[in-house]
Amino acid sequence: MATLRVPQTVPSPAEDSDLLRKAFLGLGTDEKAIISILAHRNATQRRRIRETYHEKYGEDLFKSLGKEISGDFERAVFLWTLDPAERDALLVYDAVTKWQPGNRVLVEIACTRGAGELFAVRQAYQARYKRSLEEDVAAHTKGDYRKLLVLLLTTYRYEGPEVNMSLAKSEAKIIHTAISKKSYNDEEIIRILGTRSKAQLIATFNQYNNEFGNSINKDLGHNSEDEFLATLRAIVECLVCPAGYFEKVVRLAIEGLGTDGSSLARVIITRAEVDLKEIEEAYAKRNSMPLVQAVSKETSGDYKAILLALLGHE
Amino acid sequence: MATLRVPQTVPSPAEDSDLLRKAFLGLGTDEKAIISILAHRNATQRRRIRETYHEKYGEDLFKSLGKEISGDFERAVFLWTLDPAERDALLVYDAVTKWQPGNRVLVEIACTRGAGELFAVRQAYQARYKRSLEEDVAAHTKGDYRKLLVLLLTTYRYEGPEVNMSLAKSEAKIIHTAISKKSYNDEEIIRILGTRSKAQLIATFNQYNNEFGNSINKDLGHNSEDEFLATLRAIVECLVCPAGYFEKVVRLAIEGLGTDGSSLARVIITRAEVDLKEIEEAYAKRNSMPLVQAVSKETSGDYKAILLALLGHE
Repeated sequence: MATLRVPQTVPSPAEDSDLLRKAFLGLGTDEKAIISILAHRNATQRRRIRETYHEKYGEDLFKSLGKEISGDFERAVFLWTLDPAERDALLVYDAVTKWQPGNRVLVEIACTRGAGELFAVRQAYQARYKRSLEEDVAAHTKGDYRKLLVLLLTTYRYEGPEVNMSLAKSEAKIIHTAISKKSYNDEEIIRILGTRSKAQLIATFNQYNNEFGNSINKDLGHNSEDEFLATLRAIVECLVCPAGYFEKVVRLAIEGLGTDGSSLARVIITRAEVDLKEIEEAYAKRNSMPLVQAVSKETSGDYKAILLALLGHE
Repeated sequence: MATLRVPQTVPSPAEDSDLLRKAFLGLGTDEKAIISILAHRNATQRRRIRETYHEKYGEDLFKSLGKEISGDFERAVFLWTLDPAERDALLVYDAVTKWQPGNRVLVEIACTRGAGELFAVRQAYQARYKRSLEEDVAAHTKGDYRKLLVLLLTTYRYEGPEVNMSLAKSEAKIIHTAISKKSYNDEEIIRILGTRSKAQLIATFNQYNNEFGNSINKDLGHNSEDEFLATLRAIVECLVCPAGYFEKVVRLAIEGLGTDGSSLARVIITRAEVDLKEIEEAYAKRNSMPLVQAVSKETSGDYKAILLALLGHE
């Protein structure tokens, strides 16, 4: 469930544009007004505001915002206000151009978005960067990571409920055999994770657990710090239990020395309209304080204000 | 240019449906009527006829057709009448389920269709087979072929005109180095062919020719019978000069002992609404008789009649 709170009566895009314009004018910027508008509109409403603002004032909303606000707050407002597909395209671009094996953003976007959403990201990427997403990912990565990431990002997974149990059985066995030989980059593991539907994969992982006694992620060395193994485990988590995966990202960001603001904000911004409620619940179960309180402790100022607003708290 | 001839005044889908129904009824089937209607309607018109026929007569048009006609003629009418994306999905399915290295249908569909068309094929495949195209292709192929085919079929190539000349230069060199080492399955060759835009690839191949003195396909052993090399050459041909590629398919089908009806019909049916005119021209230049005459000589009966109709001749 989403945490985004949209008022029962939403002002027209023209009214919102006027109020934003007013917030930018005069001495100082009215950050509270910016948050009270943008952080309480859904993706369609935000898109209309951008269009209307541009029509009325002849300037891109982001350009106007960029003159008034800065730093983490600016980045959060910018990312949040973008269409989800455009935002993901931008996150992919940032992840690709400074890609390192430890970067999980590509896996996260490839495996937690729906098939149609992921395809929309690829279209948005082309519109923005005049290249295909996969040509950039393929050019910036190598070897096993390339094989895995290009497939995960280009696949258009079937989303029907059908499950083939004998296939689940045979593919659980294929995965187990490969893992037993520590052949983690086996082309069959990559094929199965990269192409099967989520329903089919869940059946395969359950079958794995039943037949071989451990969860697949336990056998993928759940304590190992090997980055490729960690990537495989992240794929399984994102496919099977996205809320659990995101809870972990948020927890590690908050537990880290200082706050890894970029991961924390990314999860809040990309999931506020999707399943941030479930992520909050998973966080509350696993940690000693609610997520809102943790975010409140770790951040400050307008940046804190927008993240809390997206979490459904003012 | 297309060879399909659609009359200036097209009857309504209801009129066409009635005439088709009439052609099916009574003693014997009126094959001429079937051809005179279906082989002279474009994809949108054929789709409307299927819908209207189903509404009016409570039976799928293909089911009615299947009771009346058979063999090569039935298959040709069936393939032709399908939506292009549905038809390609079916051709992919047939190619995948009995896949052999010498089968070029997957390469042909992956590399001669536009990016949006190829995506529509993947959607049609899911609707029809309740699985993704790539999971079937990946499951039925292995090793280098799998790497190549899955990437070619899942890529969503950028179709803008932009060309990066320094990239063309560096990637021509990468390809040349790999070919010089006879490392034809080099992951960089697969990456470049599989992800770059057609405009970019044409620049890269031109650069290759200029800098290294041979066309890339000459260096890919243009006389070699190695199937993987032949596949790479087919990819280059499909990307750079589809009419030339299709001319060759048709020529080999006609030259073969007997006629490889399936390739001949496939090219005529899939290209009649696209570029069959150019394929005919390429054929006339290269062979001693026009394509229409060759088809006429090699086929017979209603099957011949529909192929000639699609070629724009009765």
